[in-house]
Amino acid sequence: MAPQLDGFFKQVDDLSGHFIDRLGKAVAIPSVSSDAARRPDVVRMAHFLETELKALGAEVELRPLGKQPDNPSLDLPPVVLARYGRDTAKRTILVYGHYDVQPAEKTDGWNTEPFELTVGEDGRMLGRGSTDDKGPVLGWLNAIEAHQKAGVDFPVNLLMCFEGMEEYGSEGLDELIEAEAKNFFKDAEAVCISDNYWLGTEKPCLTYGLRGCNYYAIEVSGPGQDLHSGVFGGTAQEPMTDLSRVLATLVDTDGKIQIPGIAEQVAPVTADEASLYDNISFTMDTLHESLGSTTTIFEDKKSTLMARWRYPSLSIHGVEGAFSAPGAKTVIPAKVIGKFSIRTVPNMEIDKTNALVFQYVKDQFAKLGSKNTVKVSALHTGNWWVASPKHWNFSAAAKAVERVWGVAPDFTREGGSIPVTLTFEQATGKNVLLLPMGSSTDGAHSINEKLDKRNYIEGIKLLGAYLHYVAVEPTQ
Amino acid sequence: MAPQLDGFFKQVDDLSGHFIDRLGKAVAIPSVSSDAARRPDVVRMAHFLETELKALGAEVELRPLGKQPDNPSLDLPPVVLARYGRDTAKRTILVYGHYDVQPAEKTDGWNTEPFELTVGEDGRMLGRGSTDDKGPVLGWLNAIEAHQKAGVDFPVNLLMCFEGMEEYGSEGLDELIEAEAKNFFKDAEAVCISDNYWLGTEKPCLTYGLRGCNYYAIEVSGPGQDLHSGVFGGTAQEPMTDLSRVLATLVDTDGKIQIPGIAEQVAPVTADEASLYDNISFTMDTLHESLGSTTTIFEDKKSTLMARWRYPSLSIHGVEGAFSAPGAKTVIPAKVIGKFSIRTVPNMEIDKTNALVFQYVKDQFAKLGSKNTVKVSALHTGNWWVASPKHWNFSAAAKAVERVWGVAPDFTREGGSIPVTLTFEQATGKNVLLLPMGSSTDGAHSINEKLDKRNYIEGIKLLGAYLHYVAVEPTQ
Repeated sequence: MAPQLDGFFKQVDDLSGHFIDRLGKAVAIPSVSSDAARRPDVVRMAHFLETELKALGAEVELRPLGKQPDNPSLDLPPVVLARYGRDTAKRTILVYGHYDVQPAEKTDGWNTEPFELTVGEDGRMLGRGSTDDKGPVLGWLNAIEAHQKAGVDFPVNLLMCFEGMEEYGSEGLDELIEAEAKNFFKDAEAVCISDNYWLGTEKPCLTYGLRGCNYYAIEVSGPGQDLHSGVFGGTAQEPMTDLSRVLATLVDTDGKIQIPGIAEQVAPVTADEASLYDNISFTMDTLHESLGSTTTIFEDKKSTLMARWRYPSLSIHGVEGAFSAPGAKTVIPAKVIGKFSIRTVPNMEIDKTNALVFQYVKDQFAKLGSKNTVKVSALHTGNWWVASPKHWNFSAAAKAVERVWGVAPDFTREGGSIPVTLTFEQATGKNVLLLPMGSSTDGAHSINEKLDKRNYIEGIKLLGAYLHYVAVEPTQ
Repeated sequence: MAPQLDGFFKQVDDLSGHFIDRLGKAVAIPSVSSDAARRPDVVRMAHFLETELKALGAEVELRPLGKQPDNPSLDLPPVVLARYGRDTAKRTILVYGHYDVQPAEKTDGWNTEPFELTVGEDGRMLGRGSTDDKGPVLGWLNAIEAHQKAGVDFPVNLLMCFEGMEEYGSEGLDELIEAEAKNFFKDAEAVCISDNYWLGTEKPCLTYGLRGCNYYAIEVSGPGQDLHSGVFGGTAQEPMTDLSRVLATLVDTDGKIQIPGIAEQVAPVTADEASLYDNISFTMDTLHESLGSTTTIFEDKKSTLMARWRYPSLSIHGVEGAFSAPGAKTVIPAKVIGKFSIRTVPNMEIDKTNALVFQYVKDQFAKLGSKNTVKVSALHTGNWWVASPKHWNFSAAAKAVERVWGVAPDFTREGGSIPVTLTFEQATGKNVLLLPMGSSTDGAHSINEKLDKRNYIEGIKLLGAYLHYVAVEPTQ
């Protein structure tokens, strides 16, 4: 039997002004994690959450994470760990969010004060952190409060993990998650992360996959120092010539990776998976608008989405050590470092991919017959993540979406990475669901970041509804 | 009959302390032309020369050049025009030098104060401008003074043109030279520029050729703004991919330019010219030392010098608009501009070379089948220069070198450009000679710039001796 949600929903509507005020209070705390001078505000934001959670009856701990690695005089902000409910008859769900934000200054081009939540007639709620990720974090608190005020029994035991360094590399978080997997998080039966976005603006989605990212550097060096092209042009083999010739062999204009063995690792598309793409709410027009151009590789939606989500891609990011300023400078750079990355997908293996890349770059360089030297290395690697969208965690969320939004969600992947997703999956061994609240136009890291009032209020209902459905969803 | 120079030479030796003091006074004026705050010092340096020249009995004019184009509130420093002698029975020689210098700060890594001439036990005279180009400029003044004090008749009428913006693009100078070609410079029968360096440290040279430089930009653009490689990798054609693929087609590792038609423009090597290379004082070891590596294209002296002086070369300088900092950034740049230049030689024509480059880049880009757009343009062009080393201006200078240094000079070209050389040749229609004073190790634009006392004092003798030989050298 479907959960009875009307009372909860009505209470969310009745409390909507209160919930918007709560978001306003949170946005007013400029918890910019990348700015050392703002660290006290980040800590203040942790205390704000602690106070609000305690007022709702949750057990709360602020966990220190030690010093910031690249600034050892600075304490990392604490992770807020909270538990609401200890009923052994109920399922236990672990949710994650972050309470830090990207930097923002009015002078960056904001139409409103970034740290004042400004609600427009059109329902756009502008403010730094509104959608990334204070709205979703408060969504869980608001869902608890609406249950209490509606007198509806909370359907699960809720474990919460809210961090304050997500916008600065989640320093210290992986270790905490691994340590707490068998402690604070040990009862968790599934994980839900609300820190991404709908594919568009009209239709909710559930995200079951993310690509990984292996980032490479090709360093070519020869001369002992930069040279003048007048004096040495024609005399010395030039590292920049060699690097250009190697970079050119990596990928073609249509994105086909030229490194042998990469394509062979990619999991074949199953019929089940292929069927997920057909009805996804997405148009090439939307893509052209995001790109600001029509220079796409594919002309159709399905090929484009598959290229973005479930096939690897290779991008050349730039060259370090060469002349990069405007104007003309007649330098022969002595050492240049080309940077490129491969977005990885199931079933690519990091080590195998690295080995293929290293060998290919060395082979291509060897073909040049150059006396210069080459080094190729991985600057960082991060694995892909994919969950089964058939898992009860997803099917419960899908039912909640249908109940709140009246439409079946799209099942999507994302081309980028949210590394904490993989960490939670690996540390807890449980299914992880990405359940977005905001829409694709929210501008999370941009000026005029916003969350639509509709997405916030219906999003609170969705988070609550998800907990009701997940509480009763049969395991398969 | 060879000129009688012993009295002049002895006087130079007797006055060497005085001449070093004069250089010290000049070095003490920080006439940095690129620094607007130093402009009064540049003007002060012009007045210093005016005063010294007038004391020697020269007629002097300080010619204003108007406002600095990129800073219209700033007056350009004047050109010092001077004439010494009006004897219609004598030849008239025009000499050029510059009295401005490169920036220098002790904190850049100088061992001494850059604007204090410091004479070491080893004869190294350290100071900004010592070799570039205050030593040579004062060389002409010193030669006049030594003639006067020795009671030796000055062998020519000397026209002098000393500018104060050479290190900042010689703003305004071309127009002045063109205007004065039929006025202040109208009597000039030959031109001598002392603003370059010996090929090595032990043997003087006379320089009869310079390469030109055409500097190109290839701009590839697609998306409306930079993109995230996670979100858009595999979706959009990437400008950086296309640019890398085009850059790779320009030149091979051994410096062979791949653009059809370039090589065909190059003048064939004559037997006369080829013979100039055999005895040149230059070793591959010296080159390896300058390079800081052994990554040369050729293994032998002659091929190397010809590649540097009389064949074109192509260097890729870098990429504007892409990620160029250390570290890893997963950006897909929306617009990238690759910069490269071609060092040009006789008989390459600028317009023809540009046309070949533009067509080739467009053809290579077209082969990619990309929807991105390409623009290729020349950021600047400058012609090559080559004079006949058989001209009486050179043969006189060669005799002067043999008299002062006891050795026949090497006849050299340079791979870089000194644009004023070509301007003087074209404006006056006269033969131009490059007669260097300093050696290859002087570090003109570097920290610890120096001029060896030997090069300065023997250089003063050389400039004077050159004027004696040029006064009597028969025209062919």
